[in-house]
Amino acid sequence: MLGPHAPVATPEQLAAAREAREAYRGGLVAPTSGVAHGLVQANLIAVPRDWAFETLLFAQRNPKSCPVLEVVEPSADGRVEPRLAPGADLRTDIPAYRVWRDGELVEEVADATAAWAEQPLVAFLIGCSFTFEAGLADAGIPIRHQELGTNVPMYRTARQCEPAGRLSGELVVSMRPIPADRVADAVAISGRFPAVHGAPVHIGDPGSLGIADLGAPDFGDAPEVREGEVPVFWACGVTPQAAIMASRPPFAITHAPGHMMVLDVPDAAYAA
Amino acid sequence: MLGPHAPVATPEQLAAAREAREAYRGGLVAPTSGVAHGLVQANLIAVPRDWAFETLLFAQRNPKSCPVLEVVEPSADGRVEPRLAPGADLRTDIPAYRVWRDGELVEEVADATAAWAEQPLVAFLIGCSFTFEAGLADAGIPIRHQELGTNVPMYRTARQCEPAGRLSGELVVSMRPIPADRVADAVAISGRFPAVHGAPVHIGDPGSLGIADLGAPDFGDAPEVREGEVPVFWACGVTPQAAIMASRPPFAITHAPGHMMVLDVPDAAYAA
Repeated sequence: MLGPHAPVATPEQLAAAREAREAYRGGLVAPTSGVAHGLVQANLIAVPRDWAFETLLFAQRNPKSCPVLEVVEPSADGRVEPRLAPGADLRTDIPAYRVWRDGELVEEVADATAAWAEQPLVAFLIGCSFTFEAGLADAGIPIRHQELGTNVPMYRTARQCEPAGRLSGELVVSMRPIPADRVADAVAISGRFPAVHGAPVHIGDPGSLGIADLGAPDFGDAPEVREGEVPVFWACGVTPQAAIMASRPPFAITHAPGHMMVLDVPDAAYAA
Repeated sequence: MLGPHAPVATPEQLAAAREAREAYRGGLVAPTSGVAHGLVQANLIAVPRDWAFETLLFAQRNPKSCPVLEVVEPSADGRVEPRLAPGADLRTDIPAYRVWRDGELVEEVADATAAWAEQPLVAFLIGCSFTFEAGLADAGIPIRHQELGTNVPMYRTARQCEPAGRLSGELVVSMRPIPADRVADAVAISGRFPAVHGAPVHIGDPGSLGIADLGAPDFGDAPEVREGEVPVFWACGVTPQAAIMASRPPFAITHAPGHMMVLDVPDAAYAA
């Protein structure tokens, strides 16, 4: 929970965030990397109430991949309004959702209101590495998937998370190709944001993470790694989705990878 | 959850921790401040399973007072063994326990095995400010309650925590009188340990925290504030006990304030 003295967004940033959410509410489906520059974005996972403790415990035991920014329960009128984006609604304001039954992806929708009405859910907003991308970009480090207008590539790894009750699964990572002479800067800059995945978990050598083919990500789009660039891997907030695929809770709603919840708080609020 | 490369304790430290826990298991009741110098100590709160989600959520929403180090459930044979102290048992290895019914303290015991057998409980180990006392002492900052051989003074404040479902309550703080010319050092040193309360929440002016009489703490022993010293207040892991008093869950077991669980991990494992 942010304290009363946490940094706040500028009016321009807030306007950009609200405009983006309004567009998503209206049906726009697009990755959010680079949207509302300087504001925090979040992964969503919503589970039935009797899975809430294990989900929160899974996050507590795997803080690098699952940093919890907020836990949100519906209000009496059904709205699911996060304090980190007053006036927003988690059921409609994300560009794309995935609906899961027994661990199977059954539907991808632009509006989750109907799915959300099925049963009482507890929603978790998990930090997203898009948060520190603004810092990387400000330091002149290229963000390839933004340049190309594609989604960041994400990979399931051979590294198991710490389980929590019925929930277990492997670590998911996002990858950005970074020029070799800027890797140390990328470590330092992302390391200043421990609440949104922090420093990379792995640099170079995809094979030792169990990634056989960098060109075939499990989520997002294929990357373009250029001469002189090193693949740098960060823990990814899609990790809870992998846990759902592995652990098969009866029902869940998540964001679609790369299509995040844009919040009203500046990245600086989560800087160490 | 600590990673595989976290700093580990020295054999001497481990021997001191095991000796202390063995003495407590044998019936010794004494405050643990200063015990097993350089190792982490923890607050305990154990609640019925249907209060576990709200307790973990309360901690997530109030991380400064309730930093969760580990969540422990009993194994099949009833043992409650934390990974942070392999071989230990949370039911016996703390010097003194408090048993709560409907928010009322009904018993203080040296062995919680019988109470623990009543119903399935989920135990939370919460960081403790004793952890950074070693750093303060190493920097030559006097720890008054250690000098006097008393328990650290703790106070309920007028500041409300963020509630979580049925759980709410006020912030509890621990207080150490610090020489005015060392207060900044005490801030810097404790600030390096965000996982165990971190920097002070308040310095000087007890009245504005709602503390009417520094000489009458709500938990622990009365302090001795000397000429030239300033009262410095840190968020305290007794905060969940205040939430129990305010929120009245049907049953709970906690440590007795100042009588902590001594763990096997060095303070450095939680340094930022």
